[in-house]
Amino acid sequence: MVKQYNITLEDVPKRWYNILPDLPEPLPPHTDPETGESRLAQLPKYILGECLKQEFSEDRWIDIPEGVQDLYAQAGRPRPLFRAKLLEEKLKTPARLYYKSEFYSPTGSHKVNTALAQAYYAKKEGYERLTTETGAGQWGTALSYAAALADIECTVYWVRAVYKWKMERLNFMKLYGSTVHASPSPMTKSGKELYDQDNDHPGSLGIAISEGVEHAIEDDGAIYCLGSVLNHVLTHQTIIGLETQKQFELADDYPDMMISCLGGGSNFGGFTIPFLGEVCRGEKDIKFLAAQSEVAPNLTGEYRYDFGDHAGLTPMLKMYTVGHQASMAPIKGDGLRYHGAAPILSLLRHHGLIDTVAYPQDEKHVFERAQMFIRTEGFLPAPESAYSVCAAIDEALKCKETGEEKCIAFNISGHGFMDMHGYTEVLER
Amino acid sequence: MVKQYNITLEDVPKRWYNILPDLPEPLPPHTDPETGESRLAQLPKYILGECLKQEFSEDRWIDIPEGVQDLYAQAGRPRPLFRAKLLEEKLKTPARLYYKSEFYSPTGSHKVNTALAQAYYAKKEGYERLTTETGAGQWGTALSYAAALADIECTVYWVRAVYKWKMERLNFMKLYGSTVHASPSPMTKSGKELYDQDNDHPGSLGIAISEGVEHAIEDDGAIYCLGSVLNHVLTHQTIIGLETQKQFELADDYPDMMISCLGGGSNFGGFTIPFLGEVCRGEKDIKFLAAQSEVAPNLTGEYRYDFGDHAGLTPMLKMYTVGHQASMAPIKGDGLRYHGAAPILSLLRHHGLIDTVAYPQDEKHVFERAQMFIRTEGFLPAPESAYSVCAAIDEALKCKETGEEKCIAFNISGHGFMDMHGYTEVLER
Repeated sequence: MVKQYNITLEDVPKRWYNILPDLPEPLPPHTDPETGESRLAQLPKYILGECLKQEFSEDRWIDIPEGVQDLYAQAGRPRPLFRAKLLEEKLKTPARLYYKSEFYSPTGSHKVNTALAQAYYAKKEGYERLTTETGAGQWGTALSYAAALADIECTVYWVRAVYKWKMERLNFMKLYGSTVHASPSPMTKSGKELYDQDNDHPGSLGIAISEGVEHAIEDDGAIYCLGSVLNHVLTHQTIIGLETQKQFELADDYPDMMISCLGGGSNFGGFTIPFLGEVCRGEKDIKFLAAQSEVAPNLTGEYRYDFGDHAGLTPMLKMYTVGHQASMAPIKGDGLRYHGAAPILSLLRHHGLIDTVAYPQDEKHVFERAQMFIRTEGFLPAPESAYSVCAAIDEALKCKETGEEKCIAFNISGHGFMDMHGYTEVLER
Repeated sequence: MVKQYNITLEDVPKRWYNILPDLPEPLPPHTDPETGESRLAQLPKYILGECLKQEFSEDRWIDIPEGVQDLYAQAGRPRPLFRAKLLEEKLKTPARLYYKSEFYSPTGSHKVNTALAQAYYAKKEGYERLTTETGAGQWGTALSYAAALADIECTVYWVRAVYKWKMERLNFMKLYGSTVHASPSPMTKSGKELYDQDNDHPGSLGIAISEGVEHAIEDDGAIYCLGSVLNHVLTHQTIIGLETQKQFELADDYPDMMISCLGGGSNFGGFTIPFLGEVCRGEKDIKFLAAQSEVAPNLTGEYRYDFGDHAGLTPMLKMYTVGHQASMAPIKGDGLRYHGAAPILSLLRHHGLIDTVAYPQDEKHVFERAQMFIRTEGFLPAPESAYSVCAAIDEALKCKETGEEKCIAFNISGHGFMDMHGYTEVLER
């Protein structure tokens, strides 16, 4: 029984896939709010030139620079696609289950795929410092790693609610040489306003983004890097799905359904966009399911223009959102705690191509399903990835009822080695 | 610049290499002590039948059962060999550095290579329960994982000094469904004696082995699994070195020197034995260097018969040892804290084929070198693997002085995601 499919290093895709030209309608442009100064005009002050070009590119394929290809190899790409044979047997499902192993990453998640590209471009464009935000901590670690490899400084604004309980991940970022501030911090204007009201303010991803952006605008040698939501970030992440397509060819199989968790959308998008492109072009018929939390079910929110951050420093993006200043209760899968879904995915959702399921705040069901996966397949998913696993198992059990021999693919975007007390707390609750 | 070499799943070796027939002299047999009952006669009560056969086999090649091959694929084999180009540039060394990525493992270390084999054989031989000991926790996690996949129970006796500060790893073992006791425990006769004297006794690997062995002897449905030292364990681990040989062929290069850390010897042996075999057969000229701790520098001890455990329940093994009841101060690289080196490696050391270096108890130099590696190559080694990294960097710097264009290969046997406070404590000391 073959349990693993992988391509060779030579077969790792050399181009990212840009879905913009294949969308069912043109992507509504990022815009300025009706009042106040222009946010669009400020973009070049904090987004990398090359990334801005990619953000609005109509080219279907974007060459991955050789330097970035080398870094992908260094980060352990390609990553295998696994057939979940033991889980299938345990569930007694007629469904065929496959999972992509983005957890085999130097820092523990898929976030390195865009971090390495952005740090590479930053160095090339002459910047000396990177700034960013992080929620669960995976993105902050990934950018710290990429910055260390590029020998460039990095400052991370980290949502305080998470900063406080993930001491190990904090130390990991520092080990790479990064400076890390709990957010809201007194270091920026947008942070200080909230910090002065409450110096134990739990923060949010939106607030932390405001701080990272503001820092980069104020500091000429610094550039801001975003880890999700924007088009170019999702484009960099398509390396996941493009590899997966080649691996499915080796498996002589193809997904009927693809599942992943969705916060801002970078892992969901990276995994599914090459397949969504096939559906958009009428070549394939695949269902897509996003696993979310009830505390931030952005795909069931409104489809409208909203800011990407809390303070309203970014341009407005047309997206499914629960509101850029919505308050969201803390959960262990903190990476899912973001108010809006990436514009590309929002448009596809609007056209009925993406379904969603949201799990309760207590996360009990999610972690129990993850435990079932751990005890059969042996891998420890990150709390966010536990949502992918959970939705995949739920779907496989539906197939058991209906007898459908569906091919279900899901992405495990990160590992949970540094999130063990999240597991313990939820399972022993 | 190629940074990674890997073989395909199809090319993963299908046989383990057994060095016994290639040794420069026959391996001194395991024996009984001069007084008291026979330990050899008891072996079948606690060591798997298939493993005992392999322990004394004179066959150079041992077929890996198809079921174990499948499990290796499931555990993500093959694992890439990386060229440490960024580290070389940082060090300005003329040496070529390569490292094997055993850290890309479901539980975080190379220990799964023998855990999966032993759990597979246990299931086949009709056992219902596994018992074992663990020091750093990597072996206990690996066996818990393998037991879960084989759907068989597992009890782990864990050195108390480590059990107490690695709460996450403890919870990880429990997540797999294992029962874990701090050792010495009141659960066994050999543990209870020490526990009754001091119920906060820090324990040692030798004591924990006594407990695991005793448990298996007393319980008919249970069998004991050892994670290091014995011939069959090292043989299972040769999958590491056999893969590495094929990867060096792809790199069109070959090591002049091989380095790894050595506690009992399973990762060192697994990595080097296929190459040591080439040296024994006169086909190659390679230097081998074991990185150890000054608290357990067993390779600089005496070469004599000694017990493998604290209580003297095992047969006597001819090995380099600091004494089976030696007390050893705690260190973060706890996996290196064992009194004896595997008999196979001890014999090769005795014949001058293996050199050793031991680092001070404060581990400052070791962790500083590891940090240099983390900031250039990006991977986070386990505390034990930090010793491999440290020795490799020290050797590369010697090459800088001499101008030698040496090819140095080292093994990173595990990752440090669950050992971050070890890093922080040592580096901030």
